[in-house]
Formats: sequence, structure tokens, C-alpha cells
Amino acid sequence: MKLVRHGETGRERPGMVAPDGTIRDLTGLVPDIGGAVLSDHGLAMLRAVDPSVLPQVPEGTRLGPCVGGIGKVICIGLNFADHAAESGMQVPPEPIIFMKATSAVCGPNDPVPIPRGSQKTDWEVELAVVIGKRAKYVSEDEAMDHVAGYCVANDVSERAFQQERSGQWTKGKSADGFGPLGPWLVTRDEVADPQALGMWLKVNGDTMQDGSTQTMVYGVRYLVSYLSQFMSLQPGDVISTGTPPGVGSGMKPQRFLKAGDVMELGIEGLGSQRQEVVAD
Amino acid sequence: MKLVRHGETGRERPGMVAPDGTIRDLTGLVPDIGGAVLSDHGLAMLRAVDPSVLPQVPEGTRLGPCVGGIGKVICIGLNFADHAAESGMQVPPEPIIFMKATSAVCGPNDPVPIPRGSQKTDWEVELAVVIGKRAKYVSEDEAMDHVAGYCVANDVSERAFQQERSGQWTKGKSADGFGPLGPWLVTRDEVADPQALGMWLKVNGDTMQDGSTQTMVYGVRYLVSYLSQFMSLQPGDVISTGTPPGVGSGMKPQRFLKAGDVMELGIEGLGSQRQEVVAD
Repeated sequence: MKLVRHGETGRERPGMVAPDGTIRDLTGLVPDIGGAVLSDHGLAMLRAVDPSVLPQVPEGTRLGPCVGGIGKVICIGLNFADHAAESGMQVPPEPIIFMKATSAVCGPNDPVPIPRGSQKTDWEVELAVVIGKRAKYVSEDEAMDHVAGYCVANDVSERAFQQERSGQWTKGKSADGFGPLGPWLVTRDEVADPQALGMWLKVNGDTMQDGSTQTMVYGVRYLVSYLSQFMSLQPGDVISTGTPPGVGSGMKPQRFLKAGDVMELGIEGLGSQRQEVVAD
Repeated sequence: MKLVRHGETGRERPGMVAPDGTIRDLTGLVPDIGGAVLSDHGLAMLRAVDPSVLPQVPEGTRLGPCVGGIGKVICIGLNFADHAAESGMQVPPEPIIFMKATSAVCGPNDPVPIPRGSQKTDWEVELAVVIGKRAKYVSEDEAMDHVAGYCVANDVSERAFQQERSGQWTKGKSADGFGPLGPWLVTRDEVADPQALGMWLKVNGDTMQDGSTQTMVYGVRYLVSYLSQFMSLQPGDVISTGTPPGVGSGMKPQRFLKAGDVMELGIEGLGSQRQEVVAD
């Protein structure tokens, strides 16, 4: 099942993708794509709905972030060995975790504003995991029961804010528009193996990142269990699992985003995003 | 005006403190103490209410965190020169910022669970600032217009998780119960100078922290302006502004919390909290 949120920023409505690719409106059936709707029970109820009887959302309607009411966005740092290397850093002995402000979250095709004073705005295609059921002290064996599904995330990052402004990383990860999420929340049952998904990102048509979740250091199962030892994970929480090589700050010479650039990115089976970079 | 949230965890209702010290129920007048209610307009509406006509909340009713629907909790690190010194760190050239998970937020007198595997759970009395109006790229001159009010926070911290588990600090700041907030949200008009408030914390009756917001390195006005350059601040966001000296990790020998300990803490004009430490 592919779930979406459609409509104006801040007023998104729930929807689902029908077999014919059209988007159908779930308004009235569920309050949002978030919270209790993401439980196994909530998703089972939605699976019982015949999309063909639901109103069709007009083509061209904006898509919002595919999850609403997000409590926290937890990001994993340096989770691909080759990305750590290009960043001049070591693979950490345990996952590095930091937060992205929930106010940074936006739709998959919304423009990405470059923050004022930014010189080093960069891209990061990432697999995002959406929590469906509260997780606290869960084992790796139990971990996947707490996952509602997956989506594409662009963990947009300002490297100077992140690394040169006296810490911590959240400072360079949290500007408005730095968290495109979607297009779809693809439920867990449709993703046979989250550790075997191709992922890619282009800037102005040139491929920058071309990797796979296969080379993650810490996989989804491990991360859900690990994080749940330090904090409770709640329905609608998002875990962004780190990026493969090919970010602008890892290039020689370095390359950063400027107004007018276009980012396109996607993950196998999870759809794709397209963002125009704009001044703020 | 002193605003509160009262009732069971997750089902708190809005309330206000009457001149006689009783708590009066605002259910039906406002949906929560959060969001648009925190705007100048929303607070002006509440000021027009005569508390004596509102139903009295029974004495002994649990208080929840004094703000609901919190989007993010931004914490400022090493913001007191003498606390930086006791931590063996330098005062940073710019504010250090990190996030506490919103799922850590709890009532001012709720028990604080020691996370499993924790050896170094520590206390930090802090002045928390509650945002009332969206702030983005605001100047220091404008900053205070965006503040709804203030409350007491205990930035409970697990030092090993924070500093010895391969980063970043959020890892040691986000366990459930690590964010007691309240008792009251005291509106801005009742706090003549947020940089002249005594603050204290006791463990089992012994004074551990005895400081003042006067010795903050970066004050409230500066912090609101500074943070708004990196991310938008939204109504109901909380900024915890750092702790004065006297934390357990700064003592020789170090002292950490164990089940059965009792923390009491407060800030001049903002009330006090009391938490029993429990096993998790």
C-alpha cells in the first residue's frame, strides 16, 4: 500500500495510490496518515478499502510529506562506510544519531530554500523508516513489528552550519525545507528487503549518488532496536538512515547547491522526488 | 498569567492558576496550552477570563508539561561559563545546540526513570523559553515579541550515552521522562528580566545547583534571534537555555542519580518541580 498526503502546506489530507496510479482521497476515513493509522490495525483497515470507490485527487495536486504529526526525525550519521571515507571520517563504533527539526519536513517536490548566509548547502538521499507502533527496549527480532513502512528522504544539509559553527550537527540539518519526505509511505509488506534497495540522486540531470541500502553499516532492524534503548519511538516518528557516497562536500573540488539547481532522487520501489533550489 | 496542563499523561487539559493559587479548568475555552493559544492574541483572550468563575481543579491533580503539542525542544549546551569549566570544556564561540526528543517531555513532578544500562544519569536545572509566534531570521530587537513565556525545565542527561557512545548529545538527552517541564508557563509580561532569575536544584535535600540566569553566556534575546537563523521557531517550541554549575558529572568524585533519589528544583517566579528517580 502506498499512502500519501495531498493538498496545501499545513492542510494536507490523507490519500492512497490506486492500482492505476491515481491518487484517491481518504478524507473522512482517517484523520491523517500518522499516529494510530500507522498501527498494524490501522493499516489493515485501510487495506480493506477499495480505492476505486474513493474520490480521485486531481492530477497535479501538491503532495505533502507522506507522514503527518511527526514527533521526531532521528537521523543516522556516517552510516555508509564509503560516505564516511569521503567525509574524511571513520565509521563510528556505534550509530551516530542527531535530530532534524520537524519544522524542516516538507513535501517531496517542494522548493528547497538555501538559508540566508549559507555557502555549503548539500544533498543526501536517504531511506527513511516510519514507526508504526511504540518501541522501547525492543530486540532486533521484534524491531520490524514496529515499522509501518518506508519512504524517500532528502537529508538536506548545510555543511558550514553543521560542522564549522561550534556544534552539534542539528544546526545544519534543520532549516525549513531541509526535510523532503515522500512521495509515498510504502507499507512494510511491500518492501521485501529494506537492505537491498537501489538509491540515487541527480543534480541538474547529473548523477551524484548511485548506491544501495545494501552497504549500510547499521541496517533498519538494528537501528530500530538500538534507538529504542535510548528513547521511545512513537507512531509517526521518522528515522533517516544515512546517505551513500556522492555528496557535494565529498567532491574534489567541493560542489554545493545554488538557486536554480534541481535535485532529483529516488529509491527502488519507493518513488522519486524533485526539488528546485531557491533563495530564501 | 500562569498556565498549566492538568490530568492524566497524554490526556492533559488546559488550566490557569487563579490569584488564590487554585488551578482553574480552561477546558472548552481553549483546546490546549499550545499553538495559537500562545500568540499575543490568544494570551490576551485568556487574560480577559475571570478565573473565579472557572471550575476548580481538585487539589492533588497531576500536572502535565505546561505546553502541549511541542514541535521541538532545542537545548543550548555549555551556556554558563562556570558549568563549561566544571565539564572540562571551553565556552563555545557560538551557542552549541542539540535537540531533546519531544517524547522525553513530561510533567514537573512525574517520576524520572533511569534508562536500562545507565550508570551516569545527571540533573540540570534550566530556564526554558516557550515560543509564541513563528520566528525566522528575527533580529535581537524583535526576538522577545516571539516569546510566549517561561518555565522551569530539568534537562535530565545520561552522561555516558551523551559523551561516550559515539555522539551526538541527543543520545543522552532523550529518554522518556528526561524532560520535566513546568509547573507553570509564566507569560512574558510577568517576568521583568529573564536574565536575573535565581535557579536552584537539590538532590535528597542537598543543594547541588545554586545559580542565576544572570551568568548565562548567551541570553534569551540573543538565543531566539540566533536560532531563528538556522531554523524556524514555531509556537509551542521550547528552548532550554543551559544549566549553571553543580551537575553530578562535574563533582569530584562524580555523583549520579539512583533509584529512590529525589530531585527538587526551581527558578525564581517560575515555581518548582519535584521528581522521584525510579528504575525503568
